[in-house]
Amino acid sequence: MTSVLEVCAAAKAAAPAVARATTGQKDAALAAMAAALEAGADGVLAANARDVEAARADGTTAAMVDRLTLTPARVAAMAGALRELVALTDPVGQVVRGFRLPNGLDVRQVRVPLGVLAMVYEGRPNVTVDAAGLALKSGNACVLRGSSSALHSNRALTALLRDALVASGLPADAVVLIDDTSRQSVKELGRARGLVDLLIPRGGAGLIQAVVTDSQVPVVETGVGNCHVYVDRAADLGRARAITVNAKAQRPSVCNAAETLLVHAAVAEAFLPAVAGDLRDAGVALVGDDRAQRLAGAEPATDEDWDTEYLDLRLAVRVVDDLDEALDHIARHGTLHTEAIVTEDRAAARRFAAEVDAAAVMVNASTRFTDGGEFGFGAEIGISTQKLHARGPMGLQELTTTKYVVEGDGQVRG
Amino acid sequence: MTSVLEVCAAAKAAAPAVARATTGQKDAALAAMAAALEAGADGVLAANARDVEAARADGTTAAMVDRLTLTPARVAAMAGALRELVALTDPVGQVVRGFRLPNGLDVRQVRVPLGVLAMVYEGRPNVTVDAAGLALKSGNACVLRGSSSALHSNRALTALLRDALVASGLPADAVVLIDDTSRQSVKELGRARGLVDLLIPRGGAGLIQAVVTDSQVPVVETGVGNCHVYVDRAADLGRARAITVNAKAQRPSVCNAAETLLVHAAVAEAFLPAVAGDLRDAGVALVGDDRAQRLAGAEPATDEDWDTEYLDLRLAVRVVDDLDEALDHIARHGTLHTEAIVTEDRAAARRFAAEVDAAAVMVNASTRFTDGGEFGFGAEIGISTQKLHARGPMGLQELTTTKYVVEGDGQVRG
Repeated sequence: MTSVLEVCAAAKAAAPAVARATTGQKDAALAAMAAALEAGADGVLAANARDVEAARADGTTAAMVDRLTLTPARVAAMAGALRELVALTDPVGQVVRGFRLPNGLDVRQVRVPLGVLAMVYEGRPNVTVDAAGLALKSGNACVLRGSSSALHSNRALTALLRDALVASGLPADAVVLIDDTSRQSVKELGRARGLVDLLIPRGGAGLIQAVVTDSQVPVVETGVGNCHVYVDRAADLGRARAITVNAKAQRPSVCNAAETLLVHAAVAEAFLPAVAGDLRDAGVALVGDDRAQRLAGAEPATDEDWDTEYLDLRLAVRVVDDLDEALDHIARHGTLHTEAIVTEDRAAARRFAAEVDAAAVMVNASTRFTDGGEFGFGAEIGISTQKLHARGPMGLQELTTTKYVVEGDGQVRG
Repeated sequence: MTSVLEVCAAAKAAAPAVARATTGQKDAALAAMAAALEAGADGVLAANARDVEAARADGTTAAMVDRLTLTPARVAAMAGALRELVALTDPVGQVVRGFRLPNGLDVRQVRVPLGVLAMVYEGRPNVTVDAAGLALKSGNACVLRGSSSALHSNRALTALLRDALVASGLPADAVVLIDDTSRQSVKELGRARGLVDLLIPRGGAGLIQAVVTDSQVPVVETGVGNCHVYVDRAADLGRARAITVNAKAQRPSVCNAAETLLVHAAVAEAFLPAVAGDLRDAGVALVGDDRAQRLAGAEPATDEDWDTEYLDLRLAVRVVDDLDEALDHIARHGTLHTEAIVTEDRAAARRFAAEVDAAAVMVNASTRFTDGGEFGFGAEIGISTQKLHARGPMGLQELTTTKYVVEGDGQVRG
């Protein structure tokens, strides 16, 4: 087993070749990677079957086993995701700003790759392929540290990707897998200063917290979303019902699903019984404060409920007396991900959009729209809930940095 | 003495009011702060005299005492710097991107303040005023942790600034000073997760390294610059002489000054004796490799010299056989700050600009131009040498993040 630092050093050595590759070379490699996945699907499925068997033997939950399991269709989808990257604009070389200084110097701020991108993630093997593809298209080498449960799958996938890179004239080490799936390996990755330019944890709150608090390399936090829908006194209640149900139940296991519903007292009697019926029809269990218990038939909520990202068909409901109380609740319990207001009142919408501190604020739209695909960025590597570098869906552009290129004719500073 | 976390919490509580303040309110407060510095100059100078006296008694070097010392002219310059901020464009509210999705949702990515900006810095009291002003103009509250040597000065300055904030209708805690100048307070500041949105260390390499490796809040590294000037075989040697002397000697104590000169072997005999004379005239001592010793009369360089940021009238000189050797030297010894090439060869310039990994690459210009003022950004809070969030001179824009505001008419996700 190669050490974590050796793996990172290999990626760093490969990074300049990836950074220099033209868009044409990178796109050809992405296509080759997609073809390799298809040609090698049997081997991937066989390796995955070992992981799935071990997971079942360990008593892993059915939901987790499902996330781990690959099928021919899922392998084909991974190949399809790589081909979709070909169609996206290459951010490398874009001029972000450019200007001429009074002394004649021409300054350009140019987008360049970060260098080495590292990811720590759980469960799903498709993240291996998605991350490798996004890193390559944005000109970065990548270091992948998946979970032990998916190790055989990830080994088979990265072996195919690496062969395809070499066949495309790029270094194999542009994609490297950390074989060591101990907690210690995550720690070592977070200490790989000078080797890792960006570390992205993607998974549960525990993993993210551990990476953020213990890393010395630059980290972008992703994912935890305790998202709220606030139904204002001036809400169109039909819209509010549709948005609430969609935000909670359309796909409850993801970070942009809503976890708490806040309802203005003035519309609580008209709104809550109706939306409670819609939610129950969608299979959602309700917990709430006194008024929500009375009007929506919710079970009593505990203090903990307001801070819980259920990721499940469960919703906390609270009646608030005004917009201030809603804003205060969100400020105390939100995770800076996505917050929605439903209102026809311009002033309330404007204030909510201005004062809520979050990556995304929705006015009369479902929280589920905070998504790189929905925003038209193509694939995303995660949704940043921090304020530094990237906030919200992270596409190719967010995997780059910039460099100032200054051209002159011998200018010196006076 | 208030605890570090209490100080940070006070700033966090003040942050929303600063974020909501209009440009007019912030500019009025900046003007009031400038006037307060002028009106209170005597008190500031008296406090500073105590710091200077203590520093002298401690045997502090003359250079350090000079950096610490305030004069009526220096206080006036601090007030002037605040007034210059009034003229700069407020980045808050700028729309970075905006587009309509196929489903009719309008998406705007809007610049918003980070929230609470913390700075750890050494020596010069003007950083206190500059940081407070930049934070305010960009809509952030700030937490300042200056050095113990400047504590009386910093207390006097922040007291004036806080009074001016209150008089302008903004909370005093928009600018807070950490009184505790122990090493422990820096550690606590770095652990203030949820209270500090960005921590910027500004000072020597030791301080920066300590903050970066021990912090759990987002950090931007600034400042260390082991910058190189590479004189190519196709250089205009007259320009090369002027650029070398300017990059080294115009202001040797700053991070964008050059520390190493690399000279292509083909021009070493024509260039080195001449530039060595220029440099000696400017008071610069030379160390170098064998060829530099012979051609420039340099003293022998040790391995350590190539990695040393002298910040002094001292230059390491090496003769390289080709551009590759120069690029390799820079990759091994550079600190990702600023690297310069002097050449009339288009291909060499293009390759150097593409392959050197640094915040700024200069082609036929002095390294000294990597500067927020020179780039037209107005004041800068530091020069980022990391790749995440901000790279190169950090002006007002780099002290903000963004928020997606999405407006719809009841859209839900299908």
